[in-house]
Amino acid sequence: MSEDGLKTLYVYRMGIDTYKNPVIFLREDCEICKAEGFAAPSRVRVEIGNRFILATLQVVKPEIMPYGRVGFSEYAWEILSAKDGDIVRLSHPAPLESLSYLRGKIHGKKLTETQMQEIISDIANNLYSNIHIASFITACANGNLSREETLHLTRAMINTGKILTWEQHQIVDKHCIGGLPGNRTTMLVVPIVAAAGLTIPKTSSRAITSPAGTADTMEVLAPVKLNLAEMRKVVERENGCIVWGGAADLSPADDILIQVERALNLDNESQAIASVLSKKVSAGSTHVLIDIPVGPTAKVRSHEDAEHLKELFEDIAKRVGLIVKVLISNGSAPVGRGIGPALEARDVVAVLKNEEDAPQDLRERALDLAGAILEFSPKISKGDGRHRAQKILESGKAWKKFQAICKAQGGMRRIPHAKYKHLITASKSGMIIEIDNRTLASIAKLAGAPRSKAAGIELHATLNDVVAAGDALFTIHAESKGALEYAVRGVCFEHDIMKIKGNNGC
Amino acid sequence: MSEDGLKTLYVYRMGIDTYKNPVIFLREDCEICKAEGFAAPSRVRVEIGNRFILATLQVVKPEIMPYGRVGFSEYAWEILSAKDGDIVRLSHPAPLESLSYLRGKIHGKKLTETQMQEIISDIANNLYSNIHIASFITACANGNLSREETLHLTRAMINTGKILTWEQHQIVDKHCIGGLPGNRTTMLVVPIVAAAGLTIPKTSSRAITSPAGTADTMEVLAPVKLNLAEMRKVVERENGCIVWGGAADLSPADDILIQVERALNLDNESQAIASVLSKKVSAGSTHVLIDIPVGPTAKVRSHEDAEHLKELFEDIAKRVGLIVKVLISNGSAPVGRGIGPALEARDVVAVLKNEEDAPQDLRERALDLAGAILEFSPKISKGDGRHRAQKILESGKAWKKFQAICKAQGGMRRIPHAKYKHLITASKSGMIIEIDNRTLASIAKLAGAPRSKAAGIELHATLNDVVAAGDALFTIHAESKGALEYAVRGVCFEHDIMKIKGNNGC
Repeated sequence: MSEDGLKTLYVYRMGIDTYKNPVIFLREDCEICKAEGFAAPSRVRVEIGNRFILATLQVVKPEIMPYGRVGFSEYAWEILSAKDGDIVRLSHPAPLESLSYLRGKIHGKKLTETQMQEIISDIANNLYSNIHIASFITACANGNLSREETLHLTRAMINTGKILTWEQHQIVDKHCIGGLPGNRTTMLVVPIVAAAGLTIPKTSSRAITSPAGTADTMEVLAPVKLNLAEMRKVVERENGCIVWGGAADLSPADDILIQVERALNLDNESQAIASVLSKKVSAGSTHVLIDIPVGPTAKVRSHEDAEHLKELFEDIAKRVGLIVKVLISNGSAPVGRGIGPALEARDVVAVLKNEEDAPQDLRERALDLAGAILEFSPKISKGDGRHRAQKILESGKAWKKFQAICKAQGGMRRIPHAKYKHLITASKSGMIIEIDNRTLASIAKLAGAPRSKAAGIELHATLNDVVAAGDALFTIHAESKGALEYAVRGVCFEHDIMKIKGNNGC
Repeated sequence: MSEDGLKTLYVYRMGIDTYKNPVIFLREDCEICKAEGFAAPSRVRVEIGNRFILATLQVVKPEIMPYGRVGFSEYAWEILSAKDGDIVRLSHPAPLESLSYLRGKIHGKKLTETQMQEIISDIANNLYSNIHIASFITACANGNLSREETLHLTRAMINTGKILTWEQHQIVDKHCIGGLPGNRTTMLVVPIVAAAGLTIPKTSSRAITSPAGTADTMEVLAPVKLNLAEMRKVVERENGCIVWGGAADLSPADDILIQVERALNLDNESQAIASVLSKKVSAGSTHVLIDIPVGPTAKVRSHEDAEHLKELFEDIAKRVGLIVKVLISNGSAPVGRGIGPALEARDVVAVLKNEEDAPQDLRERALDLAGAILEFSPKISKGDGRHRAQKILESGKAWKKFQAICKAQGGMRRIPHAKYKHLITASKSGMIIEIDNRTLASIAKLAGAPRSKAAGIELHATLNDVVAAGDALFTIHAESKGALEYAVRGVCFEHDIMKIKGNNGC
């Protein structure tokens, strides 16, 4: 076999889904495997034409793959745009320069702007393995990135993805710092603001560590995986959209980081700021409203932390050319009645339709935010925003706009219902004086949210409600019996998800 | 299908080597996959009988696996001791309590002894994915573990593995902090000390980030994968052994951590101390000599760092009941002539055989260390150790003992030679005033060391040698043409691997 032939193999689609972690498979009797000294878990440079990726190697027995081939996982196949018959060249990857910056960071050095850019570019180009990404996330966790480094990270993420431009002079946007179950204001704010004539091309994320992200909830009602061209069409027609940011490819590094953050169940401030602001700049936004709910079990727990985050957001935003307004809101209780994609979608629709029993807390929050955004408009005077928002909602214009947006995004969908349910009741009489949002969220996740769209929690009582022993507190919804049992078991492990203070004072 | 039937699948060995990272494979049309909401890269609890592991899920197309089966990677198969026909139960794993301690650590809290123990036990029991392990290693990297935490880590590692006990009152041992290519003193010290009648059951590690560990080099000459019973037999017969610590299962957590450290190319002080001392205690050692070579490109770069490390070693050792003596030695140049398993083995044998051209630096270092260890013996007076060691080496007793140990470990082997070589010559005349050990090591790794045993670097010149332009500096050895080219390319990228000061002063 010629030297070149030795290095030439044909692609083979293995039909193995390794998620966002490109894997290639070589037979243990493959000459290249031996000649190059490849062994699991080597990192291998994989080239097709002038495209390349780095992938993790898994070595397989001859039975499961034809000779002369290199097996591709689904993700490797996708990112290399492989086609049957393609020739693959394999080689040892040159050491990644940016990994030495990461090691420096771990050992206490600060990352420069150039170094951060190189790390983020390498991540966006799929050159980091999950091990490297986990190390980067850990090294940059809370408090480990300085303000300058957070700015570098934000700029690096902006530079890495695509950037949208719009004809309109003013592009508005909003973002809510998560952690408050059921807080789906985006799906109300966008139609209100768009109906008022402002342009709001909203990209949302999927859940990272929560039972639903806005993209997950919106997906219950309409397609959200729109590419940039499709998204632009929707916005040109309807002034607004609610799509998944990942599909829009505005911040490819962020999408890769998020999957590992999710596995580590680790959020972090700098990452969050960079992620939010970079996506706003990339989406072409000029004016952004940021909502920070504060509560003992919300993501931000104290007013002090919220003020710190507000200041950091404002500072970094200014330095990347964005105008931001930050609202600090009450995050002590879940918003609406549903937690989980379908159940939250139900709340949103009830508010849009002005149904009598629609959750008022969700409605009020949405009006506050929409009002503040409307005041970005030079045509709307300060103090008049909320009133305008309310009129648009009550007139049915917001509901009409929402339906139009869903249609433009690919067609409105019916909300699914869960097959399996389990009711949790109050163990004693009294007033609900505390709700543990974190545990509620984790029960909803145990029930299958956000992957199972209909799974989650339906709340029957909220903070400051007075209940009698045996009264309904919440219902767990699940799509399988296994998931339901699992979530119910989760409830048993936890006391005081809703803390009830009895009449006797305990 | 019954509820139980739904959860029952039979094992299927996929023939996929995913290294120390247990993976299971489910068909995308598998009911359990759907019912439980499993999707790549879920973590899944996998039970056979009363044994269980957590594994990462990869989802596969129906074509590549029979129906009603769950595919096992080689490592999953091994650690669950699976047999054909075994029934597997799959479920969602309960959240690992210890991951919340890890998150606490990342956010700046200290780990208590109990928390550290739980993390290390979970790692040893294969409950952490590579993502979690990478996060743990990064969170505990240099400077991030306090002295108390380092002690906790050491104790946790001792408690997690097996502990050897010996009849002898005194068990001696040695360890060298790596980073000095070619420094294979263990393979000289063990036979000298054993020949003197002391008991030295030496377990060594494989390379973490270097081109060869002592276990890799010893494996060139004899089997090193001995279990504890086999190791004990060797020591009972010959007073000493040189085996791979991983096979001895003395510190299972450490073996798992090391594979991820290698991928991150990240060493750390606390991890190193815990790893070394826990293995010594587990091996039943009472008296340990630790060698810290210091040099500008060695692992420890300054005398100050070495003194710090010495003090830390002595303190932690005392608190886990070990007597240690620490030597700080000169680590400015590679030791011996070979870098890489086979080439280093050649140097060792030359010294043992008292060959005239044997590398004197390796010989002198080994005698210093062996002498210091001999002085642990109550029968040998202080100051007399080195002389005794020299006599044993010169008399041929050490060589005889080494051969006996190799035989007892399973039979002495011939040293392999590399097929492909490339000579690097001096670009100008002058004196070699600096050698970059780190780059030398990385070139040896590019050539294939330690996986390719014969690969590495053969040095023809060393520090303070005077060379003429065109004189041989070193030869790269490789087992494949590809690896050789790759290493040669690596040399081209680097200047001054050996810095030559010309007669004209530059």
